[in-house]
Amino acid sequence: MLALPHIGRLPAGPLNAISDVTGVTVGHATLAEGALQTGVTVIRPHQGDPFRDKVPAAATVFNGFGKSIGLVQVQELGLLETPIALTNTLSVGSVATAQIISAIQANPEIGRSDPTVNPLVFECNDGYLNDIQAMAIGAEHYQQALAAAAPAFAQGAVGAGRGMSSFDLKGGIGSASRLATIDGNQYCVGALVLSNFGKLPALTLAGRHIGTELLRLRQPEADVPEMGSIIMIIATDAPLDARQLGRLATRCGIGLSRTGSIYGHGSGDLALAFSTAQTVPYRPDTAIRQSSSLHDNLLDPLFEAVVDSTEQAIVNALFAAEAVTGRNGHQRQSLREAAAALP
Amino acid sequence: MLALPHIGRLPAGPLNAISDVTGVTVGHATLAEGALQTGVTVIRPHQGDPFRDKVPAAATVFNGFGKSIGLVQVQELGLLETPIALTNTLSVGSVATAQIISAIQANPEIGRSDPTVNPLVFECNDGYLNDIQAMAIGAEHYQQALAAAAPAFAQGAVGAGRGMSSFDLKGGIGSASRLATIDGNQYCVGALVLSNFGKLPALTLAGRHIGTELLRLRQPEADVPEMGSIIMIIATDAPLDARQLGRLATRCGIGLSRTGSIYGHGSGDLALAFSTAQTVPYRPDTAIRQSSSLHDNLLDPLFEAVVDSTEQAIVNALFAAEAVTGRNGHQRQSLREAAAALP
Amino acid sequence: MLALPHIGRLPAGPLNAISDVTGVTVGHATLAEGALQTGVTVIRPHQGDPFRDKVPAAATVFNGFGKSIGLVQVQELGLLETPIALTNTLSVGSVATAQIISAIQANPEIGRSDPTVNPLVFECNDGYLNDIQAMAIGAEHYQQALAAAAPAFAQGAVGAGRGMSSFDLKGGIGSASRLATIDGNQYCVGALVLSNFGKLPALTLAGRHIGTELLRLRQPEADVPEMGSIIMIIATDAPLDARQLGRLATRCGIGLSRTGSIYGHGSGDLALAFSTAQTVPYRPDTAIRQSSSLHDNLLDPLFEAVVDSTEQAIVNALFAAEAVTGRNGHQRQSLREAAAALP
Amino acid sequence: MLALPHIGRLPAGPLNAISDVTGVTVGHATLAEGALQTGVTVIRPHQGDPFRDKVPAAATVFNGFGKSIGLVQVQELGLLETPIALTNTLSVGSVATAQIISAIQANPEIGRSDPTVNPLVFECNDGYLNDIQAMAIGAEHYQQALAAAAPAFAQGAVGAGRGMSSFDLKGGIGSASRLATIDGNQYCVGALVLSNFGKLPALTLAGRHIGTELLRLRQPEADVPEMGSIIMIIATDAPLDARQLGRLATRCGIGLSRTGSIYGHGSGDLALAFSTAQTVPYRPDTAIRQSSSLHDNLLDPLFEAVVDSTEQAIVNALFAAEAVTGRNGHQRQSLREAAAALP
Repeated sequence: MLALPHIGRLPAGPLNAISDVTGVTVGHATLAEGALQTGVTVIRPHQGDPFRDKVPAAATVFNGFGKSIGLVQVQELGLLETPIALTNTLSVGSVATAQIISAIQANPEIGRSDPTVNPLVFECNDGYLNDIQAMAIGAEHYQQALAAAAPAFAQGAVGAGRGMSSFDLKGGIGSASRLATIDGNQYCVGALVLSNFGKLPALTLAGRHIGTELLRLRQPEADVPEMGSIIMIIATDAPLDARQLGRLATRCGIGLSRTGSIYGHGSGDLALAFSTAQTVPYRPDTAIRQSSSLHDNLLDPLFEAVVDSTEQAIVNALFAAEAVTGRNGHQRQSLREAAAALP
Repeated sequence: MLALPHIGRLPAGPLNAISDVTGVTVGHATLAEGALQTGVTVIRPHQGDPFRDKVPAAATVFNGFGKSIGLVQVQELGLLETPIALTNTLSVGSVATAQIISAIQANPEIGRSDPTVNPLVFECNDGYLNDIQAMAIGAEHYQQALAAAAPAFAQGAVGAGRGMSSFDLKGGIGSASRLATIDGNQYCVGALVLSNFGKLPALTLAGRHIGTELLRLRQPEADVPEMGSIIMIIATDAPLDARQLGRLATRCGIGLSRTGSIYGHGSGDLALAFSTAQTVPYRPDTAIRQSSSLHDNLLDPLFEAVVDSTEQAIVNALFAAEAVTGRNGHQRQSLREAAAALP
Repeated sequence: MLALPHIGRLPAGPLNAISDVTGVTVGHATLAEGALQTGVTVIRPHQGDPFRDKVPAAATVFNGFGKSIGLVQVQELGLLETPIALTNTLSVGSVATAQIISAIQANPEIGRSDPTVNPLVFECNDGYLNDIQAMAIGAEHYQQALAAAAPAFAQGAVGAGRGMSSFDLKGGIGSASRLATIDGNQYCVGALVLSNFGKLPALTLAGRHIGTELLRLRQPEADVPEMGSIIMIIATDAPLDARQLGRLATRCGIGLSRTGSIYGHGSGDLALAFSTAQTVPYRPDTAIRQSSSLHDNLLDPLFEAVVDSTEQAIVNALFAAEAVTGRNGHQRQSLREAAAALP
Repeated sequence: MLALPHIGRLPAGPLNAISDVTGVTVGHATLAEGALQTGVTVIRPHQGDPFRDKVPAAATVFNGFGKSIGLVQVQELGLLETPIALTNTLSVGSVATAQIISAIQANPEIGRSDPTVNPLVFECNDGYLNDIQAMAIGAEHYQQALAAAAPAFAQGAVGAGRGMSSFDLKGGIGSASRLATIDGNQYCVGALVLSNFGKLPALTLAGRHIGTELLRLRQPEADVPEMGSIIMIIATDAPLDARQLGRLATRCGIGLSRTGSIYGHGSGDLALAFSTAQTVPYRPDTAIRQSSSLHDNLLDPLFEAVVDSTEQAIVNALFAAEAVTGRNGHQRQSLREAAAALP
């Protein structure tokens, strides 16, 4: 039986999840009825209101065949001001609207004496298992996922991951964490992925070319081009500014590469990293902000933690995801089932 | 009385509008009742279905305090595959959803055997005149604007421009065109702007510092920071690839600069340029695409046409926009009224 | 007679030069013999060793037909670690080598136990007046310019500006400064340009279309495409991080636009901004760096100062530059001469 | 004994080198005396003059701790106009100057009636084995490498690779190729790397964690931070434009990731891709250029070829490189020696 590998040499945090970064919580809303196999996943960067207490953030696009919303402003200001939402491709508009409504409820001067709010929604295409054209996600599902956010959360075929596929197997939500030590201080890096990419032959687990092994056990799929995607979210408690967080986000591509991705043409492969160490108030008391950041020449342990927690999160999604049958009877086997006969 | 200046030395096309580029049409849906002063404007790049026949495009962000949707994929693939929609900031989600629905109606395999569609929605914050929190824009307004698209279209306080302000005056939709000759062939460059930026003291008309002149005639506004934005869309019939169109989009910032903009911190200043000279089919017959493009060393006349048509479009928006009274009795005077007493 | 205009509404510093930012000095080495009309200009960000005490910096490329060296590392790390050097296009290699030698002399562990040093050299093409193929610039000229750096420095046809042309007139080095007040504190923004761009018809002085006026007084030049460039350097004592300095550098394009530039195809139009408020040590004592930065929503006065000081610096270069005769008897008239007959 | 693995499932070309792309040749100049262990490697994109017949190209920066020259113009124009030169970090200026001289000799109007030429030099820091401060590379070494360019060329500790280290072992020049079939046509992708990155524990060969195995056989090195780099050059005969070549260059990071890289902070990790299928003349006869390009939705086989040929080229560099003793008696063992005792 296939054992779940531990990626790399760094230790995981106690939950081996993004919520090992103190204050970070995750919630899901899942639709799993017949042809509707989809959902929303929300990551809260802290337990306050991120519009009032923004956090430094930056994103990297590896392949931009994607419809994510909110990256223009993150790039300019280096700040996150809503929870991060994940959903299916055709529901980004609905979830963005839900984020706006939610932010206005908490901050009635948005768009009046306060600036407008920047919704931040990432997506993958779950159209193989899910009737994506039904556009079944509404504001209530965003609210439900937000309300459910907690340090302990399910992985696999849940939330936005419900209908996702990866390496022709069932994909979805995965998470992991790593602890890195810099100058005697321990920092936590957590990853959460919405994994929906890859063709079976390329699947690689901790360096083992498991995809080619599995191919011997089953009928190969028709050679359809990949139309998947992966969203990779990194949280850390290390004090970093937006430029440095961009450097972290870029390392998500390394973890992704090691699982077999080639950043396929039709894949929207994006990463976003944020730091919880400091917040930026929306109505500052003082003109000048004092902040802390690690020196750049000390960042290698954090880079390694990003690489390994990203790869681990992708692997965890595969191990966690149960088989799902959805639209038109389409099925995705779980990795555990597919690999049952492997040595 | 203030005369409408002609910017630059190049001639305008017959309509002096973006629709001088053959095939380009523009439509509005306008809400103008009490506190609701907002709308949607749609630009169709050609008269076919842009999902099936995509056009080369590229965008430039001058200041990214903005919530536009769709730029990630435009950046990666260099293609436009929906009409371009403009609306208010908090309605981007609704309009993106409307674009998706509209594309699926015409192409039922989107998200199934075809890839998903990339909605493309730009926005400015009309919250001074409009009750932006009402989020009054729905799918029907996008459909209405799309259905209304025609070569002849209104400018000023219409469509997405209904509630917009510029230089503390009424802003909104403006358009212009310029004809450039390269190697004996004439090419048309058209600009359409959604103009919602600037403080009065900075207003400059064809080099004349009209803002400081107007300040002597009226009470200055309280010194509130700018929370405006401008969206600048360029169409051309010149054969250009996406990289070259990015070079054109970058020149929109020059026209904008000359009207008095400093790309204010709170402003979302973005440009997108597309070419109608060639289309890219969604299901190509052949593996290899043949295409034409002007040599880069011949582009200066097009750059000049972009600069001048952008500046002219901003000026035209100011001259076309009538006064509007909206939310909380907020008023924006028209430039013509404000300048009535000027020599 | 044409009067030198004051651009904008902000006051200049005492020198109206980049050296109004305390600690910033500028030096030139000038070659002016026959066909050799070229040189080197050096800007020191502070009076120490910038390899040991680096300063935050960021660059923006408006049009990348240019050969500047060093931007890759500035983009990644957001730091400047050498004086900034300006020279002619074909001498960038020689000056980069001179910068490396100079840095090693002061820091013998460069490339051994210390990392290598990142040379930072910007250039324009002075090949109309200068025999640029002679590649007459050597390490000694860089050293000479560095040794000459002082708060008071010449402008016009000196240093790297010796052979430069602008608007078919003599261009070269120009500088200016503006003072901006934020929350009761005054900050200085200084600009220095190496101005070598533009065709006469486009020349605009404080909004006045002086180029078209001058065209009536003289024979028009043959319509050769522009092969010029402009380098714009911004210094400030405001506390800003690299991301924010990138926002400042982007505003240089606005000042440039207002003088008549269209970012011509053949022009290398680049800006770099740095802050002297804080330094980053090459061998930090502590893992975590404490730093200060202005809140982004307060930056508009600095943006205005960048716009106006850049435009003023370009104008100052034109007013300061004397006529030069160089290679093949090529001549560039000074603006003052050309405009002598104007009202 | 460790066998050289074949990476991936695609076949290599006849030479398994970048020169499998017809017309591409490679030459070296090597200095290997005492403390001088360095050199220059030149890649010619075709057998003509690339200033006259430019080729489409694009670059991607994975980690920008690097001093490469020429990327600003490649980014703007999407063209290569000199041979590609590789050398040590402190010699970039000298080699750029040599490239300029060489281009002027062939094109006497450069910087006069023709535009200036854009030198393109990439570098890594060979300061462990080489006395990099000696700056021993001159124009003659560039000329020598250029003259030596041929389809058959040495790999390992030669040319720019002479003094390079990788994974605490001897690194240097490696090359590989892969053949991809699209719509019945075969295209060749070739990679050449200058490999100078990585710490031993991370070394991974075709998924096997060989670094941890080797650590058991030898004394670990002191834990000094990586100050390496890698340059990855991709050539292809597939018809692609610059935007598409940028997509190829981005996939080099995947091959690099699989060998164990984390894009270390101190590493300059860059890729450049060019296509030989079409050239762009410096003095075009016609205003409009006709060109061919593969449709983007067919690019996955080329992406896979880039990934695999890059990983293979890094592996090949390690297998080809002989042990070198250089500055201060510093030594780098070859992988073959280090792994002699492995199963």
